[in-house]
Parts: sequence; structure tokens; C-alpha cells
Amino acid sequence: MREIVVVGVGAGDPEQMTMQAVSALNRVDVFFVLDKGEVKQELVDLRSEILRRYATSKEYRVVVGQDPERDRTTSAYVEAVDDWRRRRADVCADLIATELGEDQVGAFLVWGDPSLYDSTLAILDDILARGELAFSVEVIPGISSVSTLAARHRVGLNQVGRPIQITTGRRLAKGWPEGVDDVVVMLDAQTAFTEHVDQDADIYWGAYLGTPDELLISGPLREVAAEIEKVRAEARERKGWIMDTYLLRRRPKS
Amino acid sequence: MREIVVVGVGAGDPEQMTMQAVSALNRVDVFFVLDKGEVKQELVDLRSEILRRYATSKEYRVVVGQDPERDRTTSAYVEAVDDWRRRRADVCADLIATELGEDQVGAFLVWGDPSLYDSTLAILDDILARGELAFSVEVIPGISSVSTLAARHRVGLNQVGRPIQITTGRRLAKGWPEGVDDVVVMLDAQTAFTEHVDQDADIYWGAYLGTPDELLISGPLREVAAEIEKVRAEARERKGWIMDTYLLRRRPKS
Ligand SMILES: C[S@@+](CC[C@H](N)C(=O)[O-])C[C@H]1O[C@@H](n2cnc3c(N)ncnc32)[C@H](O)[C@@H]1O
Ligand SMILES: C[S@@+](CC[C@H](N)C(=O)[O-])C[C@H]1O[C@@H](n2cnc3c(N)ncnc32)[C@H](O)[C@@H]1O
Repeated sequence: MREIVVVGVGAGDPEQMTMQAVSALNRVDVFFVLDKGEVKQELVDLRSEILRRYATSKEYRVVVGQDPERDRTTSAYVEAVDDWRRRRADVCADLIATELGEDQVGAFLVWGDPSLYDSTLAILDDILARGELAFSVEVIPGISSVSTLAARHRVGLNQVGRPIQITTGRRLAKGWPEGVDDVVVMLDAQTAFTEHVDQDADIYWGAYLGTPDELLISGPLREVAAEIEKVRAEARERKGWIMDTYLLRRRPKS
Repeated sequence: MREIVVVGVGAGDPEQMTMQAVSALNRVDVFFVLDKGEVKQELVDLRSEILRRYATSKEYRVVVGQDPERDRTTSAYVEAVDDWRRRRADVCADLIATELGEDQVGAFLVWGDPSLYDSTLAILDDILARGELAFSVEVIPGISSVSTLAARHRVGLNQVGRPIQITTGRRLAKGWPEGVDDVVVMLDAQTAFTEHVDQDADIYWGAYLGTPDELLISGPLREVAAEIEKVRAEARERKGWIMDTYLLRRRPKS
């Protein structure tokens, strides 16, 4: 039976690879890669560096598929993502069927941890549900950008005995989430934290975490929001892309 | 200046150690350990195994301090934890002052990821705030039990574009958290999921994740809750302790 391994590779620093991720890479015959079109060369380079450094004990091939376009114009976010996923599943099913031998091991390398805002597992489930291809799936957890953010700022994500929410910029823009004072925000293209400067909160912000370009800013949200906006815009301009995430911590009212 | 490194060692499998965690171990002169009294021998063994396997390039010492008792009788949870932290800080400050040379590197090994429901960083902050000892702190992220849970069940933590809450059993027992359909529960001594069998939810449960005794059960909460309770009670009886965590996933209403 074909085997697919989904490997979390960490959030940007090749040294975040785990021992089990390295072992997994060295069992792989074919690495599948979806080309993102908008080429973030550094991300491609990191992937190559990880293979060069750690996939050393076996011959392997890298097979690149064309990532379908996602409709970013529609306001129907979930439907657009679902449709995009289906089309990605078509591409992946095709790659697996044509490029992976019956007794071979294929792999998808996933940024950070595969459990956080990543579609690889849903795509593989979708392919399996169609019933035309059979393969086993193994998942190797990775260090997420969230763990990296907390480590670099040397903070915990939760206050004693209290909950944490992990959410998206899109949602944070609509309001502070109910029932939590500690909120981690990902996928924020709109600097949604600027909507909450009236809160008595601290922010711990990080961009390009784990890479040589890492940026860190923290402090009372009210005081540092403008600085983060400025640094973020400049970095984005300079590099052509940005990946950032942050923790908002509000003093509990109770 | 003294240096303290806080190293996330993963949730139970020594192979979850990252490359950077291994590098960090090999810079350490003194490993600090707080003896938990209630000796979970397997946890002590895992720590020894990690040092034996990875801390190979340098002489080091292991120094064991006495973990103060926590008052588990009081209903004032936060106050009890705060007080316990302060007393742990006393113990740690003493260990650092007496056992770590001025230009040496000390380390605390933290289960899973240091950012999740762990007091080590707060204790170090507390010691630094007292102003009597100076040291730098570096944090190395680790694979958390949450990432491990998701990987072993091959699921994502979030539904598309939706938030996740990470909370405690104590809180879940009081009600399903507001504003989220995906809830990860840690520190649950009271099988709080049994309070929610009326929900149209799935559960992904795991105990002793990453260890040879790992247990995994998933399915509709209503159907598998009783089985999980039974398996959990038996395992706890057999081994004398249990560490478990789970994801509850409800179908979104909107
Ligand atoms: C599609 S999600 C994937 C998350 C990934 N699976 C993880 O575990 O970090 C992409 C989002 O993760 C965050 N992110 C990923 N890598 C990052 C990094 N190196 N620095 C800052 N944020 C990062 C950003 O919020 C970005 O919008
Ligand atoms: C004090 S918290 C520490 C969490 C840790 N810092 C982490 O990142 O996983 C302990 C809780 O973590 C969860 N946990 C830790 N290790 C686990 C394992 N190997 N299997 C299942 N649950 C685990 C349990 O919910 C336990 O009550």
C-alpha cells in the first residue's frame, strides 16, 4: 500500500525539525510540492535547505504540482476555501496516482504544525473519501508559529487556569472573542489589532519568526500598535511578503 | 552572566526533541529538576533517557530541588497556584544561586511546549523581579501534547477559518465555551466531556501520547463518552497516574 507522511517542519528555522521528522524524511521516495505561483523564494529555499540538510540517507524525487488559484475576490470565505481545497485535492490525487509507486512513501512538508490552519490533512481525507486511491497517512507534529512566538517573547500563552483562543485576523476584526482574555491571531492581512487599542491589553507580535529576518515587538497595545503597523508595512514592502502572528493579553476583569 | 535555558522536550516521545533543543542541552552545565513527590517514575525515566540520548558532548550535573506542596483542598484555585508558584520560585532561586556558577548555563526541561499551562517562565520572571539574581533566559519551543493529539488522530485543530479554544477541564465542566465549536481540553481530572454528551460533537481523545502506552479513542461524543470514561479509569488504576487531553468538535450552527 502507498504511504503518505505529512511532516511538520517548524515555522522557519530548520533547527526546529524534530528527530522523528528527520527519520520520516529519510523514508520518503517522493516529496510533493504545490507551487504557490506568488513565489516566496525564501520559503522555497527553506524547504530545499531542509531536504539538503536532513534527507541524506536515501534517493528521492521532488515533484511539483500547480497550485490552483484561489478566488480572493468573493466574500464567501469558507466556500472559496472549500472550492480551492477540492481543486487542490484534484491536483494532489493526480500527482499521487501518477508519481508514487504502489509500495512507495510520499510526503508533504507542512509549514509549522500540520494541525493549525493548514489544508493538507483535509485534502488527503477528501482524496480518500473519493475511493479511487488508497494510502495510509501518518502525521508528524511540528513546532508551530504560535509556539515560536511565545518562546521568542518568553511568555506563556495562558494566564493561570485560564483559556486561550487561537483565531484569524478576519474574525478579530469583527470583535474581541467572547469568554477569553488571551487571543492568538494568525492569518491577519488587515492588522486587526488596531481595532482593539481601547482594550487594556498587551500585545506580543512577531514576524518571520525563526528566520534571520525575525521581528519582535511587545508592549501595551495602545502604545505599540502604531509602531507595529509601521514596522510591518516597511518589512512587507522591503521583502514583498510578510508572515506575522501575535498574542493579545488582556487583564482579566474578574 | 548566568544563563538559563528553558527547553520544551515534547509530550512523551524522546524523538519529538528538536535539533535546537538538542543543541541547547549540549551547552548546559546544570539541569534543575523539581522532585514532584508523587513520583511518576516513567516521567523521571523519560527525562533521564533524553539526557542520556542527547546530552552527549559535555559534562553536566543534575540538581534536584524539593517541589513545595500545593494546597489542593482550597477552592481558590488561582490563589493556590499563585502561592505555590511563589514557593517554587523560592526553591528555584536558591538552587540557581547556590548551584550555578556566574558564567554557567542552567536548564529546566519542560514537558511539551513551555507556552502551555506550565509555570516555569512565570517562576523565572518572579525570581528576576525580586532583583536579587540576574540571568538571561532563552526558551526553546517543544512539541505540545495538543499538536501530538492532533497528529495521532490525523485531524486539524480548527475548521476552515474558524477559531479554536484551549481550556481546562475545570472550565469545561462549567459550560461549553462561548463563540467556539472546537475546544481542546487539558488538565481534566474530572472527565468534564461527560457534561456535554447532549452536544452534536465529535471527540478526539488521547492519553499517554507519544509513549508506548498511548491510548486513542475518537467518535461521536454521545457514543464514545462512556467507553473513554471506562478506558481512562482502568488505565489510571493500572498505572497509578494518567495524562490525557482531547479535542471536542461541534458542527457549526451557522
Ligand atoms: C496558513 S497558516 C499556517 C500555520 C502553520 N501551520 C503553523 O503551525 O504555524 C499561516 C499563518 O501562520 C502564521 N505564521 C506561520 N509562520 C510564521 C512565521 N515564521 N512567523 C510569523 N507568523 C507565521 C501567520 O499568521 C500566517 O498567516
Ligand atoms: C501542566 S499541563 C502541561 C502541558 C505541556 N506544557 C504541553 O505542552 O503539552 C499538563 C496537561 O497536558 C496534557 N498532556 C501533557 N502530556 C500529555 C501526554 N503525553 N498525553 C496526553 N496529555 C498530555 C494533559 O492534559 C495534562 O493534564
